[in-house]
Amino acid sequence: MKKKQVQEMIYQLEDLDTSRMYQSDFFHTWQKSDEEIAAVFRVAEVLRAFREMNISPRLYDSGMGISIFKDNSTRTRFSYASACNMLGLRVQDLDEKTSQIAHGETVRETATMIAFMAEVVGIRDDMYIGRGHTYMKEVAEALQEGYDDRVLEQRPPVINLQCDIDHPTQTMADMLHVINYFGGVENLQGKKLAMSWAYSPSYGKPLSVPQGVIGLFSRFGMDIVLAHPEGYSVMEEVEQKAAWEAEVSGGSYQRTDSMEEAFADADIVYPKSWAPFSVMEERTALAESGNVHELDKLEKKCLEENAKHTNWECTEEMMERTNNANALYLHCLPADITGVSCRQGEVASSVFDRYRVPLYKEASYKPYIIAAMILLSKFYDPSEKLKDLIESPFPRVY
Amino acid sequence: MKKKQVQEMIYQLEDLDTSRMYQSDFFHTWQKSDEEIAAVFRVAEVLRAFREMNISPRLYDSGMGISIFKDNSTRTRFSYASACNMLGLRVQDLDEKTSQIAHGETVRETATMIAFMAEVVGIRDDMYIGRGHTYMKEVAEALQEGYDDRVLEQRPPVINLQCDIDHPTQTMADMLHVINYFGGVENLQGKKLAMSWAYSPSYGKPLSVPQGVIGLFSRFGMDIVLAHPEGYSVMEEVEQKAAWEAEVSGGSYQRTDSMEEAFADADIVYPKSWAPFSVMEERTALAESGNVHELDKLEKKCLEENAKHTNWECTEEMMERTNNANALYLHCLPADITGVSCRQGEVASSVFDRYRVPLYKEASYKPYIIAAMILLSKFYDPSEKLKDLIESPFPRVY
Amino acid sequence: MKKKQVQEMIYQLEDLDTSRMYQSDFFHTWQKSDEEIAAVFRVAEVLRAFREMNISPRLYDSGMGISIFKDNSTRTRFSYASACNMLGLRVQDLDEKTSQIAHGETVRETATMIAFMAEVVGIRDDMYIGRGHTYMKEVAEALQEGYDDRVLEQRPPVINLQCDIDHPTQTMADMLHVINYFGGVENLQGKKLAMSWAYSPSYGKPLSVPQGVIGLFSRFGMDIVLAHPEGYSVMEEVEQKAAWEAEVSGGSYQRTDSMEEAFADADIVYPKSWAPFSVMEERTALAESGNVHELDKLEKKCLEENAKHTNWECTEEMMERTNNANALYLHCLPADITGVSCRQGEVASSVFDRYRVPLYKEASYKPYIIAAMILLSKFYDPSEKLKDLIESPFPRVY
Repeated sequence: MKKKQVQEMIYQLEDLDTSRMYQSDFFHTWQKSDEEIAAVFRVAEVLRAFREMNISPRLYDSGMGISIFKDNSTRTRFSYASACNMLGLRVQDLDEKTSQIAHGETVRETATMIAFMAEVVGIRDDMYIGRGHTYMKEVAEALQEGYDDRVLEQRPPVINLQCDIDHPTQTMADMLHVINYFGGVENLQGKKLAMSWAYSPSYGKPLSVPQGVIGLFSRFGMDIVLAHPEGYSVMEEVEQKAAWEAEVSGGSYQRTDSMEEAFADADIVYPKSWAPFSVMEERTALAESGNVHELDKLEKKCLEENAKHTNWECTEEMMERTNNANALYLHCLPADITGVSCRQGEVASSVFDRYRVPLYKEASYKPYIIAAMILLSKFYDPSEKLKDLIESPFPRVY
Repeated sequence: MKKKQVQEMIYQLEDLDTSRMYQSDFFHTWQKSDEEIAAVFRVAEVLRAFREMNISPRLYDSGMGISIFKDNSTRTRFSYASACNMLGLRVQDLDEKTSQIAHGETVRETATMIAFMAEVVGIRDDMYIGRGHTYMKEVAEALQEGYDDRVLEQRPPVINLQCDIDHPTQTMADMLHVINYFGGVENLQGKKLAMSWAYSPSYGKPLSVPQGVIGLFSRFGMDIVLAHPEGYSVMEEVEQKAAWEAEVSGGSYQRTDSMEEAFADADIVYPKSWAPFSVMEERTALAESGNVHELDKLEKKCLEENAKHTNWECTEEMMERTNNANALYLHCLPADITGVSCRQGEVASSVFDRYRVPLYKEASYKPYIIAAMILLSKFYDPSEKLKDLIESPFPRVY
Repeated sequence: MKKKQVQEMIYQLEDLDTSRMYQSDFFHTWQKSDEEIAAVFRVAEVLRAFREMNISPRLYDSGMGISIFKDNSTRTRFSYASACNMLGLRVQDLDEKTSQIAHGETVRETATMIAFMAEVVGIRDDMYIGRGHTYMKEVAEALQEGYDDRVLEQRPPVINLQCDIDHPTQTMADMLHVINYFGGVENLQGKKLAMSWAYSPSYGKPLSVPQGVIGLFSRFGMDIVLAHPEGYSVMEEVEQKAAWEAEVSGGSYQRTDSMEEAFADADIVYPKSWAPFSVMEERTALAESGNVHELDKLEKKCLEENAKHTNWECTEEMMERTNNANALYLHCLPADITGVSCRQGEVASSVFDRYRVPLYKEASYKPYIIAAMILLSKFYDPSEKLKDLIESPFPRVY
């Protein structure tokens, strides 16, 4: 990429008001303005260009990026580590299995104790509905209190690495992929997106991806269709937000219980399993009361219910229905691939194989998206910082 | 903070003889001279000022800070990681669960193998009386042998991150908090400190904090009172050392079996649970012989004994007895808070809440204390290094 | 070391053709030319000299070194972390216990997901015959595909940190120790090496060390003798390769079933336990079928077979047979030391103690060997980079 082009991208960033992002948490995309969302994409693209130009984007000589992962994660863990490393931050993970947090420390105390040197706190907590986002807010409030009380020298922002409601680092990586695939955000107006439930032999997959997708993609003038079998509804507030955003941006929002209908003439499809919101609520309550027997019964019931919808699969026939039989297939990975990772799953292996390379490109944006979120929350004038970096470049590899 | 002030602090450091700290381990505070202790506080304060002034204190372009944690730890782990990061060292943890150390390697061999690139080795091993400090000495001797044999290019110092005898990084952070609270070390003469046992529903808490506190705080001309129920005595050698230090510094040392007496007119209170030294010895022997049945019996007996002293709680009434009902409350955290983290514990929740902010400030000194200990053990002329850093400052955040 | 000497070493590097190492994996030493092997030793020595001269060898301002350890490891983990740290890379470990890899992701997908920012991927997978090297090749192919598909911005090389076939970072550290011990590679011609099986109370030790040793040491004109009881043979292909290399380099290759014969007049001895190749194959098959009962039977049978050969021990009497009773004793550590780490093992404690310091020196080369492998795979013109570093030196410790 030419230096001129990247400089142009940095100049365009100046026109976007990112002042409200400074020292702010990133919980849900719908809490951010269009300019703020655009700024994340812009900074992510600049950072990617910097890497290709061998320009180091390191803005810290030392500093800590804290991470809290309440469940297993490979790609998000690596993306967060890569984003921090790019900027010069060292990741310190709060491993609840090897820390005293298990011994009854309050959220407030732990949050303070791990944040004395923290520049940013990334959290993944998506397992229980009503819990993940609540936990992140508690941490953020504790950090604010610590700062207000002059216990912390600064207020490290919280970055949502997936909660029970939204998964902004994922959906923004997805969206940046879509923007590049269609040659610019200006080409998305009128495109049809099918965010569809798909069958999976496992139960209890988080709602944050479908919710995050309709919450974010609805901002770009697209025709959004959410498809799922009866009973698999997502959070009402998110749907309302998505519907409103779609209307405002000149698109539309619709729900259907037919995958076929959703796929008809779609330009983008995102077939993915999730658990019904009501089931997730029930599961959270049972898990908290420690009722293992009822949890087992719930799982059994859900799997039986799921099994009625094995035809919700992204097959070649289903793809045929899309615009020119050529819709862009999205997935957050890993997918349940029929005959590969399971007997029957979300997607036919021939479809998945055809989109494997684009899917991996989609995933490759995540480290840059996370780094952009961090950068925008830490620097009041991001374009000035990026200009410094490009004008007096320091090589990443010597 | 003004640059002038910080420069003044650095100049004052020149007057302190730190030559014996160079390439030395930090095991117990009482093995260090008054000037050495003062130097740790001074360097910690300078490093804190550097951070506020956005001056990077990085002294290493690369290098490893090894850590060995024999039990769970959040705050010490984060503090050590932060201290190393500040100075430019990368932490590599020897995780005994994922390493071959469990397969019968000797301490000497393992210590050598992990130290080829080590600048410093931080160890926490506080679970068994007679074991932690012994282990640290063994590691230090192995490192010395490795250096003498020209196997190691340098002799990395061992920093005690908590042993069975002392907890210097904790008590020095506590003390620096006290110094700042009272406006200078010169104001501590004649102040009364109550280091008191307190009831906790758990048994077997380490002795290193009370021992470390009386061992360190006795150096500043304060009137030290150690209070505990009969049978909860600490190591005799440490008490003797504390009594001697108190006398030399113009203070006094006293033991009582009444919390009320200890709190009377106290300026500082440190109410905290610990297990009796004799019980800890018995426990170590049983644990080594693998006698689970006897261990269970011991725990039961101890909990019953503990339960006779539930009135040893830092209540509002107890605080009323202190000087102006306004003593500074200290704790190493996490505390057992009555009605919060347990049914009945070390401290009333209203007392804890009132001191929460100062407690968190107290904890915030630890990364700087650790960094100061490392810096003093690695550089023969610390004031020269700090002068270089402030005269040709490099920003921590660009 | 004088700067002149180090510059001379760097100039000599120019004469070695390392172009094929650029962006290449390091699987087995016998896939590398003599010049390439010599270049690894040379770069390792330069890096060691740099450290002694306090010259920072950091070539990356940011970047990730990925590690995948499929079994426990202390020394290799620390060596890899040290090597990466030296060069400016941050290690991110793919911990299969805390990652989604356990949930059925394919190797290709996982390899891609962890490599978006990877400069190098170090893998240890030595437990099952026919598996480790196969896995490393799969990862390398996935990375190549990712690069060809423009999903990855670069193709990170795979470094074999021990597979089922070879253990190049170990044997090259061993060899560099031997070269320095005998005062130069030119002094190895005609020296006799005894790579001998030795008794251990454990069963199933990997074959990669003996195979790696005969595969590498045979290149230097030495007389190689592989000794083991009947039935403990290693992979035929590796033996053939070693025999061919020995002949080409003016040495010889021989197998014997007598430890005494192997040790007779030997200049170097490497007595170490391993499991027979055929047993390892059987074990892999049983482990894959999950046949625990048959696995237990196999272990029992093997331990019984092993027990017939307890006289295969590196005793003082055995050492007496060597050249001037003074052969250099090698081991990859940890060793099974009779009366120390086990009742009866590979080596007498008096022999081990006598060679403890040289053994630790042997181990100390590993971080430099790994760093050299990384450097040679990442930079097309390594001597130019090293010249830059020595001509415009940046201190490692300020």
